Amino acid sequence: MRMNDLITKKRDGKALSNEEIAFMIEGYTKGSLPDYQMSAMLMAIYYQGMNDEETTCLTKCMADSGELLDLSAIKGIKVDKHSTGGVGDKASIVLVPVIAACNLPVAKLSGRGLGFTGGTIDKLESFPSFNTDIDTGTFTDNINNIGAAIMSQTEALCPADKKLYALRDVTATVESMPLIASSIMSKKIAAGADAIVLEVMSGSGAFMKNDEDARKLSEIMVRIGSLAGRKCVAVITDMDEPLGRSVGNSLEIIEALETLKGRGNRELMEVIKTLGSQMLLLGERVENEAQGEAMIEEVISNGKAIEKMRQIVSAQGGDPHAVDDYTLLPQASIVEQIESPQSGYVESIRCDEVGMCVHTLGGGRSVKDDPVDLSVGLVINKKVGDFVNVGEPLAEIHANSRQKADEAKQRFIEAYSFSPSPVSHLKLIHGIVK
Amino acid sequence: MRMNDLITKKRDGKALSNEEIAFMIEGYTKGSLPDYQMSAMLMAIYYQGMNDEETTCLTKCMADSGELLDLSAIKGIKVDKHSTGGVGDKASIVLVPVIAACNLPVAKLSGRGLGFTGGTIDKLESFPSFNTDIDTGTFTDNINNIGAAIMSQTEALCPADKKLYALRDVTATVESMPLIASSIMSKKIAAGADAIVLEVMSGSGAFMKNDEDARKLSEIMVRIGSLAGRKCVAVITDMDEPLGRSVGNSLEIIEALETLKGRGNRELMEVIKTLGSQMLLLGERVENEAQGEAMIEEVISNGKAIEKMRQIVSAQGGDPHAVDDYTLLPQASIVEQIESPQSGYVESIRCDEVGMCVHTLGGGRSVKDDPVDLSVGLVINKKVGDFVNVGEPLAEIHANSRQKADEAKQRFIEAYSFSPSPVSHLKLIHGIVK
Repeated sequence: MRMNDLITKKRDGKALSNEEIAFMIEGYTKGSLPDYQMSAMLMAIYYQGMNDEETTCLTKCMADSGELLDLSAIKGIKVDKHSTGGVGDKASIVLVPVIAACNLPVAKLSGRGLGFTGGTIDKLESFPSFNTDIDTGTFTDNINNIGAAIMSQTEALCPADKKLYALRDVTATVESMPLIASSIMSKKIAAGADAIVLEVMSGSGAFMKNDEDARKLSEIMVRIGSLAGRKCVAVITDMDEPLGRSVGNSLEIIEALETLKGRGNRELMEVIKTLGSQMLLLGERVENEAQGEAMIEEVISNGKAIEKMRQIVSAQGGDPHAVDDYTLLPQASIVEQIESPQSGYVESIRCDEVGMCVHTLGGGRSVKDDPVDLSVGLVINKKVGDFVNVGEPLAEIHANSRQKADEAKQRFIEAYSFSPSPVSHLKLIHGIVK
Repeated sequence: MRMNDLITKKRDGKALSNEEIAFMIEGYTKGSLPDYQMSAMLMAIYYQGMNDEETTCLTKCMADSGELLDLSAIKGIKVDKHSTGGVGDKASIVLVPVIAACNLPVAKLSGRGLGFTGGTIDKLESFPSFNTDIDTGTFTDNINNIGAAIMSQTEALCPADKKLYALRDVTATVESMPLIASSIMSKKIAAGADAIVLEVMSGSGAFMKNDEDARKLSEIMVRIGSLAGRKCVAVITDMDEPLGRSVGNSLEIIEALETLKGRGNRELMEVIKTLGSQMLLLGERVENEAQGEAMIEEVISNGKAIEKMRQIVSAQGGDPHAVDDYTLLPQASIVEQIESPQSGYVESIRCDEVGMCVHTLGGGRSVKDDPVDLSVGLVINKKVGDFVNVGEPLAEIHANSRQKADEAKQRFIEAYSFSPSPVSHLKLIHGIVK
């Protein structure tokens, strides 16, 4: 088999066989197939796409390229949850303790932030000495003992995906549906959960800029999941404005904790109940969505959810007092209001720009291994559909540098557009794909 | 400037600026820009194409990447000739002495064969000790003294094109119009001639499989040439069967010599007169095609063309006696007839397959630096439109291995298809693009 022939085949719009995909991924992982041939193939895939069989095969080959987590030591149906990434998306941080408090084991693998999106691992590290670099033994032990654990993706998991992603990142081949779907699903499949709920974000602050693309990606991933023998549901959620109220690592942790304590805002709670009830359904803890939502409300109001959070933080080496004393979390030195430049209804918020404001403040990463300032960010006061008077705060900025604060403020204001006539609030749940 | 952004731009169908193309070619030649980014760019160019301005800029940047030949020491208009490559194409070998005999200086840069096509340099090496690795000084001296010289492309000429071509060859990005055009034209421009006649072959034995593509390539190259300040004409010639009668290095030399002696076949002579009169027109030796054709016929019939060939062979270290005594050229040990398996009119000959027959016999190259058996090949007796009786010879095979001879014979027969009703001879000149 010659890679040049496989590139030609894909270039000309033909489907690759399972053997051809396996040859390619094995060769690339081992290093016998050079980057320059793989990048030409990736660009051909960008233009020609891949059918379901090809995408599933690619996913399985990437999952098989490294370690496969064995979660068989954990009792019951293991549910994982994945977000395609957005701005202010702290849903996973709320869901892990909530679902565990509903007596469904949660085996959560998470990543770090990149570009305008944050990552669950960074956010959790706001808890002093919280450790996500745990081994599989600790991971499964913790799940058996307290019902949940959150682990950073190890280097041993899906090495083919890591290598391919790094190549896509520098060859303008990130934005390809089958490549995005297989990258996400290979990690989920290697992570060993029986059921996966996918939070697919749609809008200016997400990788999928519109519902059509988000739905397409959701459908591909759900099909790959079921072809690979996993129960899978995708929930398409809004990312045309940040989710909830806070953007920035420790600020998002505070919002998540407030939500777990029953003081969450309407928007975040709606997303939590929708995603959570799907997790409970896949985990066979409830029979319908309404039961799931009721169960979630119950574990929040009776204090079981926040208590589970204390247990998780404690079990992974973090300080559980920070769950109640937010001064133990990283604090920014400058906290100021960003005043509205005009009166009117908020018509739209460029969500990626809000992410970039936090990036500007030092709260994000341009490249892997960049240091992240966990304390900085924004607490948003006015969202789409809200009325604001000139001079009234649009948001509160948390910064550690005068210059960066001014720069981010300016950028934040420019992300807003206003209308003199009333504007509807955004719909949070755009669809569910099963 | 970031290469990833340039790939994205081209991927999305936008034109690259001159600065961007220069950045890319300089970086790639120097090695600061990695192969994997360039191959993704090449694939994006494959799909999105390049406009005339981009293609011209790419051509100039590649020409400028290395040495530029300075032919100013040669008196008069210097004409070069290039063939896009075909099977049995010995036109250059006839044209160089013919045009020099017409008192127009010919500065000919040539390459070696690859795949199913032969190369002028390989063919000329059939003359014992003929040397094409001459320096620029010898090249210009010979042209001033005897009117013509043939030089192998040096490593110093267009290093960017060499590196790019090698990458295209293994990433399925050879078949792209702007990349083919810029590759050819960059070498011609670096080679310094004032005027260039392009022989663009069209058909099963050429890179351009049909006239539409051949015309498109011709038009691009002629435009690039004139934008780069060179006089340029393209002649589209037939490659749906081999040109003339022989295929294989020393056999093609014999056919070229016979043509120079006035005993050439109709097909080759027609192509020689068409290409040659265009060279004479560009070189301002004649005022119209008819004058050019008459001049060519004259230098052949009066012996000046074959005498010029003796001078060229001699000046480049070859044995001029081989021009008259063909036993001094490489000889194959097995010479046999290939008999027709049926009676009928020859309907078509798969020309690339005929090229591959010679390849099978050892007369071609799979990769650069493969040794080539100069003695082997085919002399074709029946061409498209000819009637053949069963058992009558289709061709004569020249081989040095029993096994290879049998294999090539079989393949040759399979390249033919026959018809019971009369079939027209193929038209040799498909068009001229000025």
